[in-house]
Parts: sequence; C-alpha cells; structure tokens
Amino acid sequence: MKIQNQHYRTIWRDAPSVCIIDQTQLPFALVIERINTHTQMCHAIKTMQVRGAPLIGAAAAYGVGLGIQHNPDDQTVHKVASELIATRPTAVNLAWAVQRMTQQLLSVPDAQRVQAAWEFAQAIADEDVAQNHAIGQHGHSLIAAKAAAKPMRVINILTHCNAGWLATVDGGTALAPIYAAHDAGLNVHVWVDETRPRNQGASLTAWELAQHGVPHTVISDNAGGYLMQHGQVDMVIVGADRVTSNGDVCNKIGTYLKALAAYDQQVPFYAAVPTPTIDWQLLQGTDIEIEMRDADEVAYMQGQNASGQVCQIRVIPYESKALNPAFDVTPARLVTGIITEHGVFRPEQLLSLAAR
Amino acid sequence: MKIQNQHYRTIWRDAPSVCIIDQTQLPFALVIERINTHTQMCHAIKTMQVRGAPLIGAAAAYGVGLGIQHNPDDQTVHKVASELIATRPTAVNLAWAVQRMTQQLLSVPDAQRVQAAWEFAQAIADEDVAQNHAIGQHGHSLIAAKAAAKPMRVINILTHCNAGWLATVDGGTALAPIYAAHDAGLNVHVWVDETRPRNQGASLTAWELAQHGVPHTVISDNAGGYLMQHGQVDMVIVGADRVTSNGDVCNKIGTYLKALAAYDQQVPFYAAVPTPTIDWQLLQGTDIEIEMRDADEVAYMQGQNASGQVCQIRVIPYESKALNPAFDVTPARLVTGIITEHGVFRPEQLLSLAAR
Repeated sequence: MKIQNQHYRTIWRDAPSVCIIDQTQLPFALVIERINTHTQMCHAIKTMQVRGAPLIGAAAAYGVGLGIQHNPDDQTVHKVASELIATRPTAVNLAWAVQRMTQQLLSVPDAQRVQAAWEFAQAIADEDVAQNHAIGQHGHSLIAAKAAAKPMRVINILTHCNAGWLATVDGGTALAPIYAAHDAGLNVHVWVDETRPRNQGASLTAWELAQHGVPHTVISDNAGGYLMQHGQVDMVIVGADRVTSNGDVCNKIGTYLKALAAYDQQVPFYAAVPTPTIDWQLLQGTDIEIEMRDADEVAYMQGQNASGQVCQIRVIPYESKALNPAFDVTPARLVTGIITEHGVFRPEQLLSLAAR
Repeated sequence: MKIQNQHYRTIWRDAPSVCIIDQTQLPFALVIERINTHTQMCHAIKTMQVRGAPLIGAAAAYGVGLGIQHNPDDQTVHKVASELIATRPTAVNLAWAVQRMTQQLLSVPDAQRVQAAWEFAQAIADEDVAQNHAIGQHGHSLIAAKAAAKPMRVINILTHCNAGWLATVDGGTALAPIYAAHDAGLNVHVWVDETRPRNQGASLTAWELAQHGVPHTVISDNAGGYLMQHGQVDMVIVGADRVTSNGDVCNKIGTYLKALAAYDQQVPFYAAVPTPTIDWQLLQGTDIEIEMRDADEVAYMQGQNASGQVCQIRVIPYESKALNPAFDVTPARLVTGIITEHGVFRPEQLLSLAAR
C-alpha cells in the first residue's frame, strides 16, 4: 500500500534491524522504528506498535530471526519462540508463525539457521501478501454482486477495528475486498467503527482509507445498529484474530454486537481471514482465551491536542475502575460467510478447507 | 442526591437566576452556573450543560419562567415556548413540559403569570423527583427478586449513557432502582457503558455512582456483549428519551445493540421512564425524529490532561469525516419491561397506562 504515494509494507528487514511502522503514533505521526532484538519485538507486539493477527504473525517470525542471530542453537530457538508466543494470547497466527519457524529451523543445521530464519520469515510475509490479494479478489466479487443489484448507488460497507493493510504485511484482510472494489471503479463507502478503547478504526482504518482515497466516515461504535436499521449498511466485513473450525469468529471486542445487528436487520456479515487465522484444533469459539488488557486503555484516550502534540487524557473519574476485555466471539449462526484466500465459505463449509 | 455529602438537585431557582450544574465539566470539575435568561437556558440545553430527558423538561419549564419574567403576555409565552422546544428534537419531555407550562400560563391573568410560572416549574421539578422515587421502588423489587434467586452473589446491572440523578431533577430513572437496592443493602454492581461519543457513562454515571458509593466498573461500549456471553450481566436497565405507545424505546445511540445482546443471551432488558417520557401520540419508534449532532463530537474527545486541565483532543485523521446520530430505537420485541412510577409494564401492556 502507499503512504503519500510511496509503497510500504508494515514490516521489512533492513539488516541488521527489522523495521516497523509504530502504529501507536498514527494517524498523527508516521514513525518508522528499528527493532534490533527479539525482546524489542516482544515489546512492540505487547504494546501494539504492531498489531493485527496476520501482522503479529509476521512480526513474530522476524522476531525469531532477531532472537537467534547470535546463537542459533536448539535451546535458543525454543526460548525465543516461547517468549514471542507469550506476548499475546488470542490471535492464532502468532503461535502458528512461531511454530512454523521453529519446526523449519530445527530441521536445518545450526550453521545455516540464521540465514534460513530470514528466508522463512520473508516467506511468511510474502505468503500473507499473496493470501490477502486472493481474499481481496474473492471479496470483490461479493461487493460487485451487491453493486449489480443496486446500480448507480453507493455500496456502504461497515467495518470494525482495523483489518486493513496495517493489520497485515500488505493488502489487508477485511479491507482487501474494499480496496479491490474501489480500484476497479465500484462506488464504495466505508463506515468506520471508532473501535474503543484503542480506536484502531478511528486512527488506523480511517487513516489508511484516506491514504488510498477510499470514501469513508468514522462513527462511534454505538452507531452501526442505527445505520443498519435505516438501510445505510449493505454489508459488514471484519477481520478476525481466530476463527474456530465451526466458524465462530473471535475478533475485536464489539464485533459480536455488530453481528447481532446485521442478523437482526438482514445485512450480510462476513469475516475475511487468511487460513492461518483458522484454528482447526478448536471446535468452538468459547474455547478461545480472551485477552484482558490494561484498564488504563479504557480510562485514558490518546489524540492530538490543540498544540498539535499527541497526548493522553483521562476520561473516567479517578474513583472509578475499568475493565478491558480485548475480544469477543461471534457465533457462527450470525456469520454469512468467511472470505479466505481459497474463496468464500459458509461457516458450516469451513471444515472442507481443513483437508487442503 | 449528595455531592461530597451535601444534598443537591441538578436545577434550582435562586432568584433572579436558575442554577444548574454544568454537566459538560464533570467529572473533573463541579461548576454551578447561573442562568438568567431563557436564551441562556436554550444554550445550556443545546450544548448539553443540562441533558437527560427528565432534566431538560424541568430546565425548559424553568426557562419559560426566565423568558416571561419581564413581559408575560401571550405572544411572549408562545415565542419563549417555541424557542425552548426547538433546542432538541428527540426527547418528548421537553415538549411536554413546555406545552404544559404554556397551557397553564395562558389560563392565568397576565399579572399573575410570572409568579405562577415559577410555581408551575417547581411543580414539574417536584413531580419528577416523586416519579423517580416511585420508579426506584418498583425497580428495586425487580433487583430484589434477582438477588433472592442468587443469594450471596453480586447482582450485576449494565446501564448505558446516564439516566441517573444527573439526567433528572433528582433520583434518576435507570439508576433509581440501583440506588434503592444499594441503600437497602443489596449487593449491586454496575457495568457503566462509556457511551461514546459524549461519554455520559464514563463521565456522569461513573461520577454519580462514585459519589453515592455504589460499586461500578466502566467498560467500553463494545464490551457489554462479551460480558453477557459470560454470564456477567444479570439485567440491563436504561433510561429513555421517548417511548412510543407500542413500547419501542428511543434512547442514546447504542442502546439497540445492548438490547440485541441481552435478548440473545436471555438477560432481562428494562427501560425506566416516568410517564412524561411516553409519547402516546406516536404508534411506533420509527416515527421518532432522531437528532443528528455535530460530527466534532465524534472527532474530538474531552478529558483531563497530565497537567490536570480539562481539554479536547482530536481522535480521527483530519482527512476523515464523521457522522453522529444521537439516538436509536430499540423495538418493543427486545424489551422485557418498562419501569414507570405506576409499576413495571410489558411493552404491550403500556397502553393500559394511557387511560390513567
């Protein structure tokens, strides 16, 4: 994707470092950060400088490269892997990428491991880009079908959180179909859920859509139901942090509420996910560990003050507590389809993919 | 209710002014503002220095008093009334209170109108307090029944926006049952929806619950569905800006999403409203005019900075637009009951109240 017309990925190797875009600084500052150790990468994942299920998979893969560059023995591979996996519990891509790195590295002689690690990490990143491109094409067909049924009218798509370019290595998951449709000349407009408490919609999705020139409007997380009641939403497309084999969708907190409204108002609800986001081991979403994040993410809000500085303000009384569950699970019964790199599947068809 | 152990109403006459608590300054500063003209009262209602359906009814009634104090002729009564009614379109109490003031004043000789206006406004305020007390008693019975079924355990009640003491003259609507239950020794805990974009939950509900010592936790608006999925919500109680005669509930944007989740998870969903909030003229919620407020309420957020000053920060990119519908309508099919000063009614029973 492009930032001010220059092509970027969200993560890339620039030896001896790995570079990332610090997403906690967007939309008001574009800060590229050099990551030099796997400990720094753990910190970047934990503090959400990099976030989004596919991106934290790739980031962890590069993190393995950083972690073994001075000593690639088996013990170090295992130690680095377990530290990276422990950074965040909910997204399956993270564990998937690290386990794949570990398996591949252990099958290679020690002397070749450092070079191999960079190649394996690059392969994970490249695969993500290719998968997202395919997701974009399959999702584009869904939008084109809507557009054909509504000639001359805007197709309004609601999304929650950020499952765009910034949540992946490049291309996005939920936003990939939107970029593909927009680039193909379809008249799309995106309702961007603010996505409290960390505002990934307001700060990241809005920013990347603006960079790409896609018409969009930010709304509070409370507004989507109203818009669906008034026929202002043609479809919902979200990403996911983990999809279980029965088609339950674990995604950013609040997704379940939008899925309920979509179901109630007969608006199609899609999750766009590359297959590494599908956890074939888990039979249902209730088995997923939901990350509880720091209550201060609810108590404080970040933005730009009148002097142009990015700062935090407190938004709840000092006497009050807050709770911050980061994800919820949307049951498969509310999901119209899962858009993957292999096509669009109804939740109950998902298991047919496992065989591939 | 009490602020630091001193009793306050949210609005009172202190001749020649009417005093209000400026709710845009809470929770970080308690500012009492003197309102001297009906134009100032219109401004206070529009900018939400006073807000909440019952309170803006009382505020408008006092506003009529201010508006006619120098010239109480018929023409002035009508002019002042129409300016006050035009301040906000959605809450029915506003129009109800002003129309009642107008009707009563026009039946009184001009020379007695100024004194009468203050008495009529005081009566509206006093009635609100009495109604809320009765709502508290009826709602308390519902909570007590839950507590009896769950001995020794905390009763978790979720509320959206602020329908507490601050939304009324005193006592609150949705929070009245909670205060009554807490004061009676029941073990209640309140999940407080932040309520973007204006954060009435985080800034007002949390503050007044803290002042009264009621255990509570602030959550993002996205979190309620997750909590219900995990059995952490025993009932939902919200206020309303307007209830139609079929039992549809128009309340702060996002209420519909919580009602859907409550229905999906079999959690009882109640709206607590004094009868002046019921619009017998409207047969269904889709007939209600929904106020669109300034997009800047979504684009900016207010809170306290590190220096202790209340300030606003921008939270969306400058290139992005925002939309700000202020209310939504929860269909009666999702509503377990309407708690009024006359008792608790199923939505389809509501019309039996109209006859009183």
